[in-house]
Amino acid sequence: MRDAAGNDVDWRNATTLDPEWRLYARSSGDDKAPIIAMAAALDALRKSGHAPNVNLRFVFEGEEEAGSPHLGDYLAKYPDVLRPDAWILCDGPVHQSRRMQLVFGARGVVDAELTVYGPVKGLHDGHYGNWVPNPIIRLTHLIDSMRDETGRILIAHFYDDVKPSSAAEHDAIARMPPVESDLKREFAIAATENENLNQSLLLPALNVRGIQSGHIGAQASNTIQTEATASLDFRLVPAETPESIKKLVEQHLESQGYTIVRTTPDAAARLAHPKIAKLTWGAGYPPARTPLDLPLSQQIAELMTTAGHPPVRVPTLGGSIPMYLFQQPSNTPVLILPIANHDDNQHAANENMRLQNLWDGIEVYVVLFEGLR
Amino acid sequence: MRDAAGNDVDWRNATTLDPEWRLYARSSGDDKAPIIAMAAALDALRKSGHAPNVNLRFVFEGEEEAGSPHLGDYLAKYPDVLRPDAWILCDGPVHQSRRMQLVFGARGVVDAELTVYGPVKGLHDGHYGNWVPNPIIRLTHLIDSMRDETGRILIAHFYDDVKPSSAAEHDAIARMPPVESDLKREFAIAATENENLNQSLLLPALNVRGIQSGHIGAQASNTIQTEATASLDFRLVPAETPESIKKLVEQHLESQGYTIVRTTPDAAARLAHPKIAKLTWGAGYPPARTPLDLPLSQQIAELMTTAGHPPVRVPTLGGSIPMYLFQQPSNTPVLILPIANHDDNQHAANENMRLQNLWDGIEVYVVLFEGLR
Repeated sequence: MRDAAGNDVDWRNATTLDPEWRLYARSSGDDKAPIIAMAAALDALRKSGHAPNVNLRFVFEGEEEAGSPHLGDYLAKYPDVLRPDAWILCDGPVHQSRRMQLVFGARGVVDAELTVYGPVKGLHDGHYGNWVPNPIIRLTHLIDSMRDETGRILIAHFYDDVKPSSAAEHDAIARMPPVESDLKREFAIAATENENLNQSLLLPALNVRGIQSGHIGAQASNTIQTEATASLDFRLVPAETPESIKKLVEQHLESQGYTIVRTTPDAAARLAHPKIAKLTWGAGYPPARTPLDLPLSQQIAELMTTAGHPPVRVPTLGGSIPMYLFQQPSNTPVLILPIANHDDNQHAANENMRLQNLWDGIEVYVVLFEGLR
Repeated sequence: MRDAAGNDVDWRNATTLDPEWRLYARSSGDDKAPIIAMAAALDALRKSGHAPNVNLRFVFEGEEEAGSPHLGDYLAKYPDVLRPDAWILCDGPVHQSRRMQLVFGARGVVDAELTVYGPVKGLHDGHYGNWVPNPIIRLTHLIDSMRDETGRILIAHFYDDVKPSSAAEHDAIARMPPVESDLKREFAIAATENENLNQSLLLPALNVRGIQSGHIGAQASNTIQTEATASLDFRLVPAETPESIKKLVEQHLESQGYTIVRTTPDAAARLAHPKIAKLTWGAGYPPARTPLDLPLSQQIAELMTTAGHPPVRVPTLGGSIPMYLFQQPSNTPVLILPIANHDDNQHAANENMRLQNLWDGIEVYVVLFEGLR
């Protein structure tokens, strides 16, 4: 245990436990904390003679950090046990403001790798520049045809499947503690692509994660490169799916004059098509969103408030977790109620659990387990 | 010595020397061949009792492959000896068609490295994509604002200093053996940025030589990168100079909202400016071009024709060599008359000199040395 300044404390001799003390241990925040808190909440209910009003089932899955490769099969295999009326997931951290949060969705994701081609061998850019196609120029043009500097995706029909956000979602976002100024300072950015962070997460995103061709710095040479590659991901919102957007992206490439291939084209293919794009897709998965105005959604928020922890209501995470596995096939409500501190160094050195977060978690779980109807 | 099939031949027992045989030796093509040919031409003139009509000076510079760092100083230091009425440079290869060529210019060059910035630390692109500026998107937009897919440079006023090509230059290009179809097959490209290779070399070029940010392939991660960098070069034609285009490029970056810096910006600078571009320039040097219709230019072409080697007249190389050092300060005519075969594997393994090229070179030099007036 360490105090807020990071010094070791001997808690065995302490007369009180400082709520700012932290337990340092592997997985202390992610994901031992909620398991221990649930067990403590059940103990407390038993000791006080209170009983839940609904049937509670506890599901612990041990492969989440490895991509949950068997979770879908498992859920399908035991529908009697694993198709409840609702799911409450306890993974993740509370809000950066230290207020608890209640999260109603996550964006889906699918990644892609895109390679375009120049000459079959690197060429002197003095001798051939202006004549031999430069694959970097082709790639930058192609990327720019897909997304602008405000995050707007320019691919035709990309927003057709996007369900408009609800009044409840906009209301929740308006009530979220503003984080933009602090984040801008922390990230040392003077301008952002959009004004409101959480509003922008309600929309799909096209991220260019990496781009590479030739060399920079001392390794740079006067060469027209043979190919240029970008690594992309798309973040999806309801009712988009990886399948629906793959089709739109491919139609877009074709509209830009590209012939799409899945493997590296040989010289004959290059000679046959003016513009070739090698496009390979990751598997990906769809988004999920639970309405904020469901009776259950409102009830959980009220119970948390009763327990002294009025939640920050988050319509969706910007990132992707496979909530859809729990949601499908019956559109089951899925909510996320995390308890770990946001600064728990999850997955990294010095992972830790702040004591106050553990206690808050126990309190909220007790009220939830007893109060849900 | 090897024959056309690459087999060793014992030339000492041969009754005739096959003109397709090749001498394999380090620097045999670049640049021992013209030195030996000049010496043989002088020997031939002396033996036949013929004398040149003009004063000939032979200048051999040994640092060309190291960037000729002392050539400029040397030319300035000995103006009496090294400011002739004209220069004939003998470096480089003949035309790919095996016809001799007479080259009248070279493009200038200046390179630049351009870095734009995102957040000060890599960020999860699910959590922050659409809100935190993506430096790859900024860079692709900036590159696209500078050049289109036909090689046209979009920077304002970039063509203001470009001298229109002369009728003689267009005529020479029209008479050059067409190489486009063969090159397209060799490079496995189905389309080019412009139709005529040599026409396109009369214009300045913006080449993107390398681009890098984040990772692709298995190393790719869902990250908004902290910065993105491109390595560029500009090929210049008369009367552009590195100084003239540097100014235009910087004005362009500013017109796109960028603050230009020379060193990596710290967090305070990033917070102060919405868009920052770190731009560093290489030294570069200007282009040079000798008019094709000068009496001397016409005379040399006629002498070559007399010697049985009517030249392919090349208004300018696309690449850059420091012809300007010989041309300045008095606008001295500079021509390039190479003799090495184009397939001499210059600088690489198996460098070689084709016997016919050596003999052709000796013939042309004899006629030139004797005939120049």
